[in-house]
Amino acid sequence: MRVPTDRPSFVAAFGSLFEHSPWVAERAFERGPFRDAAHLHAELCAAMHAASPREQLRLIRAHPDLTGRIAEWRELSAESAREQASAGLGRLSEEAMEELRRLNEAYRARFDFPFILCARLNTPETLLAALRERLVHSREQEWAAALAEIEKIAWLRLQDVLA
Amino acid sequence: MRVPTDRPSFVAAFGSLFEHSPWVAERAFERGPFRDAAHLHAELCAAMHAASPREQLRLIRAHPDLTGRIAEWRELSAESAREQASAGLGRLSEEAMEELRRLNEAYRARFDFPFILCARLNTPETLLAALRERLVHSREQEWAAALAEIEKIAWLRLQDVLA
Repeated sequence: MRVPTDRPSFVAAFGSLFEHSPWVAERAFERGPFRDAAHLHAELCAAMHAASPREQLRLIRAHPDLTGRIAEWRELSAESAREQASAGLGRLSEEAMEELRRLNEAYRARFDFPFILCARLNTPETLLAALRERLVHSREQEWAAALAEIEKIAWLRLQDVLA
Repeated sequence: MRVPTDRPSFVAAFGSLFEHSPWVAERAFERGPFRDAAHLHAELCAAMHAASPREQLRLIRAHPDLTGRIAEWRELSAESAREQASAGLGRLSEEAMEELRRLNEAYRARFDFPFILCARLNTPETLLAALRERLVHSREQEWAAALAEIEKIAWLRLQDVLA
């Protein structure tokens, strides 16, 4: 698809790249025209970084909690089974699921926002390993890590939209 | 340090983040004010992506060829010994050095630009592995990979400047 040049179509196309936060696309629109997908993504990310800390925190908190998703994965519907398989999460043992939930709860308690990781770029092993590693970081480090993951998620969603 | 608000000081401070390409900082200056280091970096990267393909290629080609650096590393001066140690390259066997040079030459022959990898985030093993993996990519993929590595290099240099 070509990048729409009018604001409503642009926001309709790219408003969902950032979780429940169409304002990122709204602000990035002003930064066009865009040379290519990488440029569009870079301007979207710059708009996110230009936002106030309060707005960034709201964006981070708009992401679903991993614990909730683990619970969902356990009640396997036909659809969630596919998602689970694509994230490789079907292979997690009940014990590992339990550790994941425990660390994820500790993460939220420590940082007051959810643990964000681009699921499509991770396996259960790297997801658990990332959670273990990131749990001991500073809040500033994890704020930056959350935004970095959001950038990756937006990049993959952009590929989907453009495909 | 605080981010300078006048253009000459800004370009003096950040003009060297992108290899021999102060135009990236010059164009990013217009995008200020900057909320924090992450925002400044995001606008620099967006300015790079907004540039024409010809400018991007010139930026990519401005990076030193890895083969030249391997040759340097072999003639150990006191200073290069430190760099080599910090990049973990002292541990490369003569055989591995030879493979590195061979693959690096093949890379330049295939893509017509140098292999770029953020040395500070890599070990000899990951460097060699990356070269082997990236050699079979398309030129479009490697163009994107080169810009992504340049973003990482600029981020680390920005930390140095701000420190």
